[in-house]
Amino acid sequence: MRKVAVVGGGAAKADKREASWRDLVQEAGKAMFDDVDNMSPKDVDSIFVGAAQPERFAFLTYVAPLVAEYIGVTPRKVLARTELACVSGQAAIRYAWNCVATGMSDIAVAIGVEKMYPPDMAEAQTSMACVLDREWDGVNSISAPPFFAITAQRHMYEFGTTKEQMALVSVKNHHYSSMNPLAQFQKEVTVEAVLKSPVVAPPLNLFDCCPMTDGSAGIILVPAEKAKKYTDTPMYPIGSGQCAIGNVINNLASLTEWIPLKLAAKEAWRTAKTTKDDVDIAEVHDCFTISEIMEYEGLEFCEKGKGGKFIEEGSPYIGGKVAVNPSGGIMGCGHPLGATSIYHTIEILRQFRGDVNKGRYVKGAEIGIQHSLSGAANQHSIIVYGREAK
Amino acid sequence: MRKVAVVGGGAAKADKREASWRDLVQEAGKAMFDDVDNMSPKDVDSIFVGAAQPERFAFLTYVAPLVAEYIGVTPRKVLARTELACVSGQAAIRYAWNCVATGMSDIAVAIGVEKMYPPDMAEAQTSMACVLDREWDGVNSISAPPFFAITAQRHMYEFGTTKEQMALVSVKNHHYSSMNPLAQFQKEVTVEAVLKSPVVAPPLNLFDCCPMTDGSAGIILVPAEKAKKYTDTPMYPIGSGQCAIGNVINNLASLTEWIPLKLAAKEAWRTAKTTKDDVDIAEVHDCFTISEIMEYEGLEFCEKGKGGKFIEEGSPYIGGKVAVNPSGGIMGCGHPLGATSIYHTIEILRQFRGDVNKGRYVKGAEIGIQHSLSGAANQHSIIVYGREAK
Repeated sequence: MRKVAVVGGGAAKADKREASWRDLVQEAGKAMFDDVDNMSPKDVDSIFVGAAQPERFAFLTYVAPLVAEYIGVTPRKVLARTELACVSGQAAIRYAWNCVATGMSDIAVAIGVEKMYPPDMAEAQTSMACVLDREWDGVNSISAPPFFAITAQRHMYEFGTTKEQMALVSVKNHHYSSMNPLAQFQKEVTVEAVLKSPVVAPPLNLFDCCPMTDGSAGIILVPAEKAKKYTDTPMYPIGSGQCAIGNVINNLASLTEWIPLKLAAKEAWRTAKTTKDDVDIAEVHDCFTISEIMEYEGLEFCEKGKGGKFIEEGSPYIGGKVAVNPSGGIMGCGHPLGATSIYHTIEILRQFRGDVNKGRYVKGAEIGIQHSLSGAANQHSIIVYGREAK
Repeated sequence: MRKVAVVGGGAAKADKREASWRDLVQEAGKAMFDDVDNMSPKDVDSIFVGAAQPERFAFLTYVAPLVAEYIGVTPRKVLARTELACVSGQAAIRYAWNCVATGMSDIAVAIGVEKMYPPDMAEAQTSMACVLDREWDGVNSISAPPFFAITAQRHMYEFGTTKEQMALVSVKNHHYSSMNPLAQFQKEVTVEAVLKSPVVAPPLNLFDCCPMTDGSAGIILVPAEKAKKYTDTPMYPIGSGQCAIGNVINNLASLTEWIPLKLAAKEAWRTAKTTKDDVDIAEVHDCFTISEIMEYEGLEFCEKGKGGKFIEEGSPYIGGKVAVNPSGGIMGCGHPLGATSIYHTIEILRQFRGDVNKGRYVKGAEIGIQHSLSGAANQHSIIVYGREAK
């Protein structure tokens, strides 16, 4: 089994874009190939496309050959689209990683894309409604905001977490995204602004929620021993953890403890031969402010129930215990489903390179994790990246 | 890199079913686990779900955890859904294979499912219309039947292929499917019946076309060295080839020569360290009768342009040069998109075991290939299976 390296990445500006699904792919593809040396699209032998719902958002399916055509790649070893809702992009990376590791592919692209602002937004909203279990939970009006609202209510009740603590997540992440040129939101917010923003599902206000986003992002993976041909600054996937328990909400392991996250993290540390204490950068899935607080806990950056306190004390800021979402997270950067994990993978690559604005640079970082979750937080996925191969 | 084995498989009866999407999954899951010894669903650590368009056919997405829940699996190493239109199932197998090979997974399920008869068949038909390039070809009314009709017209013009020769493919495949209890069609057809069946897109009549189908099928993959714990009769994926050229029709390499098939086959033989002459069973993608004829040629079972002659001479029958679609193929068994490749993989497994009806048994087979294509035949995918590990 070969070690694998990520040698470059590029992305389209995330936003509500005046650009088609295909435009987004081309913008990301160009940025990605511009980011590596000595490689043309013709050298790529495999492509993996992360896309959550092109069928409903863009009336497109069978998108892997379509994306290949648009970025000038002729896949001749492996190709597929991967879908795992909000984790679709990371699933594409993991497929690519395994194929390069086995030698089935020598140069692979993992690229994600989502166009979430179609002409008819009602169509987009009904699309989102089938991510959670449509037949059992959908009929009870459980889509993402109500589900995470229930989670937040219960977390407040059990652990005394406050709306102000949750708001701090939004403040932190918008602070960092204000310095990220790829991000959807380039403005800071205050605790007061979060608390005064319109109620979406109590206790979650508008600025407790990530937005819908158009975007595309891609990375290139090669065998580690060939990485230096393409870049001076590769990074290496060194560990993986993924776990799902249940689908319908009444089959979840717990509401306020994300067991699949704990198990995925355990497997990630095991396979990476590392621990949570070695993590310098954690790009995690802050789809709602409560999510990030529960991720501090699930990743064991702090004790169970102390996530609110953790941010209150400044621990997830750069210079604190661990830099969480120095990109600005999903909250600040936007959440183009199939592309999200890949945007945040590129963030880790650029952090390792020192290729980010000074105000959000995590100097000397050696280990970064990229975490995504989907649906009713019933599935969590982590890839651990190292600045050095292990 | 570890060698990998397929230790068992099972499927739901393919048909227009009075069963929900979930019912189909459970039926396949039960049959699959019943097919192996010493394994419970709890032992499975990873799941890969091939599904082409649940978003449109069944208003479901994020189907990997849903399928896991329905068959009693708790994925704790890897999970994802794969989509590649008609090749979605094979894409799931390839993902599983690579993960077991690298050691990221120890016991993986690859399962496909499609419910193609929703309450509103107009919805199903618009779904199929977005498989080919919707923005460029769709506006010119190019969906699957017209595309393959153009292909057939051109093949007839260039090589003198006849409608009678094409009809023989349907006759052969319905002959075999009449003996396959999993197949959608259990009746034989005659050349005359094919030629007299309603015109779909000239020169293709109804019995030149595969049907829409509800179905689900799954297989279990483990490291080769552990295979005998679960079955006396494992089989081994020993080679892979996949290639896509273009997406929009005017970017195809050729109309009457499927270049991606030739390249995929070349890579499949190379990686399997075998040749076309060693193939005993070829389960290939007979979505239309002309497809199978072009596959005889693309796989080089016969010379370019001689595909019609090849079947006229009885070469693709059992006992001929190579047994093509002894399952009955897609034409006879049905084509539940995301599950199709997996049905035909199970056929090869059962052939190796001798666990098929006498009339369609390929005795002593050592090498089988499973080929699928999607869209405008712009993408072809092959896995080579051996009765012995290589």
